Amino acid sequence: MITIQEEALKLHGEWKGKIEVISKVPVNDKRDLTLAYTPGVAEPCLAISKDVDLSYKYTRRWNLVAVVTDGTAVLGLGDIGPEAGMPVMEGKCVLFKSFADVDAFPLCIRSKDVDDIVNTVRLLAGSFGGINLEDISAPRCFEVERRLKEVCDIPIFHDDQHGTAIVTVAAMLNSMKVTGRDIRGISVVINGSGASGIAVTKLLMSMGLKNVILCDTKGAIYEGRDDLNPAKADMARISNLSRKKGQLKDVIVGADVFIGLSAPGCVTKDMVKSMAKDPIIFAMANPTPEIFPDEAAAAGAKIVGTGRSDFKNQINNVLAFPGVFRGALDVRARDINDEMKIAAAMAVAGMVPESELSVDCILPMSFNKNVGVEVGKAVAKAARDSGVARL
Amino acid sequence: MITIQEEALKLHGEWKGKIEVISKVPVNDKRDLTLAYTPGVAEPCLAISKDVDLSYKYTRRWNLVAVVTDGTAVLGLGDIGPEAGMPVMEGKCVLFKSFADVDAFPLCIRSKDVDDIVNTVRLLAGSFGGINLEDISAPRCFEVERRLKEVCDIPIFHDDQHGTAIVTVAAMLNSMKVTGRDIRGISVVINGSGASGIAVTKLLMSMGLKNVILCDTKGAIYEGRDDLNPAKADMARISNLSRKKGQLKDVIVGADVFIGLSAPGCVTKDMVKSMAKDPIIFAMANPTPEIFPDEAAAAGAKIVGTGRSDFKNQINNVLAFPGVFRGALDVRARDINDEMKIAAAMAVAGMVPESELSVDCILPMSFNKNVGVEVGKAVAKAARDSGVARL
Repeated sequence: MITIQEEALKLHGEWKGKIEVISKVPVNDKRDLTLAYTPGVAEPCLAISKDVDLSYKYTRRWNLVAVVTDGTAVLGLGDIGPEAGMPVMEGKCVLFKSFADVDAFPLCIRSKDVDDIVNTVRLLAGSFGGINLEDISAPRCFEVERRLKEVCDIPIFHDDQHGTAIVTVAAMLNSMKVTGRDIRGISVVINGSGASGIAVTKLLMSMGLKNVILCDTKGAIYEGRDDLNPAKADMARISNLSRKKGQLKDVIVGADVFIGLSAPGCVTKDMVKSMAKDPIIFAMANPTPEIFPDEAAAAGAKIVGTGRSDFKNQINNVLAFPGVFRGALDVRARDINDEMKIAAAMAVAGMVPESELSVDCILPMSFNKNVGVEVGKAVAKAARDSGVARL
Repeated sequence: MITIQEEALKLHGEWKGKIEVISKVPVNDKRDLTLAYTPGVAEPCLAISKDVDLSYKYTRRWNLVAVVTDGTAVLGLGDIGPEAGMPVMEGKCVLFKSFADVDAFPLCIRSKDVDDIVNTVRLLAGSFGGINLEDISAPRCFEVERRLKEVCDIPIFHDDQHGTAIVTVAAMLNSMKVTGRDIRGISVVINGSGASGIAVTKLLMSMGLKNVILCDTKGAIYEGRDDLNPAKADMARISNLSRKKGQLKDVIVGADVFIGLSAPGCVTKDMVKSMAKDPIIFAMANPTPEIFPDEAAAAGAKIVGTGRSDFKNQINNVLAFPGVFRGALDVRARDINDEMKIAAAMAVAGMVPESELSVDCILPMSFNKNVGVEVGKAVAKAARDSGVARL
């Protein structure tokens, strides 16, 4: 029997690329050429040279997103290099097009230097309507995103941070509903303080979560711990307000929710048993979760979500990023801000009808193509309401 | 009545971009997602990380060309900026796809600095199979191309230079045939010593032309003229061996061929009359030629070509660049060298059947879609024969 892995490799060899750049206009005769190319093409050129905003009218920019990586944090594979990251980036572009009709083009940068990455994207920003940063390792990804937001006039979105945060918040919102909890009153432990762990913590806090402890491989992050990088130190100041110390197994005791964006198998049944009654477990390490759903359930977990499509409650970015950019592009947003991310999370959560909402169904299916449309509408509205829309 | 200009602008507004990035793979259910995206996509990623050449097998790189500009020399419009250059770059991508099934993607760089342009392209070279430089003003374009050829492992081709040179040589080869001349024995005056004028001169010389004078706005370029930039000084050393001085009107006297890559209307009837018997005029300034065909013919010109589609003998790059990259990509050429350019020129010339060859038909029609195929074959063979093919 052929495995998924073998079949995927075989198919990639047959596809020879998962995206294609096609022409939308005919060039069958002299007249076609004079309209799409010279001399006719001079007219939109001149129009744009007088008003650069017309690039959104006369070129593909209005619908075009660059998917940018340096290949340093690809899937769970780590630093495999820019060319090797390309199949994931092409896959991302496929999802953009399939789920939100966004034209996305992959660019893999042959440098890990923050200046190089920022400069490359900055210099190309006039060719795109938005930039999706992807699989750039922490903590460089924070600086890349921060600096690009400063120097670019188009929205910048690091999907590993914000896409993950949006779907996790969506899963949390529906889990609160199903278990009759209020996010403002629960305690959450998040394991993994890389790009996604930090972004998830921040977005949950902006939704009202107060009691949250972030852990890394050395245990709880607290103010005063002397081995924290700047990003973690920032988090120490705003989370873990009671300054709990100890390993994950120590701080997870009594928690209502565990969110893992960390390493395979790092949560045991005993740890789940030590949590509050009916705990919620989002074990999102990929492909092997922090704890498998059957084990977590056996230990008393009420709701279990993972990143995988072969278990219930898949928590997958594809529910977020296509619609987020659809909305941002539709209103030509200058930025993708917290208001837009929260709107996206609420829209994702709202895609599960009340009648279907249950411990086994906290999110819509990943291949539900209505999600991108609805998320897009919600994000566009939030962009307008928060003053970053240009249309 | 609506003009071509008005209609082109209207159509560009309706097209909203002349290219589109589409998905080649289905994502309709869970299984599709696991094959095109996680976890299946990890397999081609791992394969490429072990052997980077597999990026040509598992991603679109094998068929993908970047069309890169800084917007400084767009059409005859000059330095109109990167965003304003985009309609031309998209048009180029349309022609790549339509005439040689090459996927081409436009990148407009927001800098005129040679280091910036070189670095941006260098860092992205792993995402493409080739780079088509476009509408970058001279003399920076020479340094950009030279440096990129040094640092990139994929073919670099500045179309304004080499595409123009290829079609001009093709037109020249057939003009020689029609008028019973031999390129080794004729005298040629080339007006315009920017990117294209210099490249045309060089490629004609590599075909055996010896007697050639290059002019700029100040007249003939000769060794010892004290106001030449480095590129022109290089040309002074290898052309105009008799060191003729004077204005265009002085040095054109007695010439067999005039090639204009210069300015509208700079050639008069009297100048044509001063040339050798049955002179050949390629007046390629766009959209207004150095002299209009009817005037040139009235003054005795035997063959007249222009860059325009509304006159006979259109000398248009579209006959060259799609097939050149088709051939280079098909054999994964490391470079696009003179042998490949000459092969392309001969293939273009060969596309006019002997029976149709005449003073009014020295080149195939620009929208003849067989040209790209034949040029591709010839270029691929030349790449193999000259040792730059990797397949």
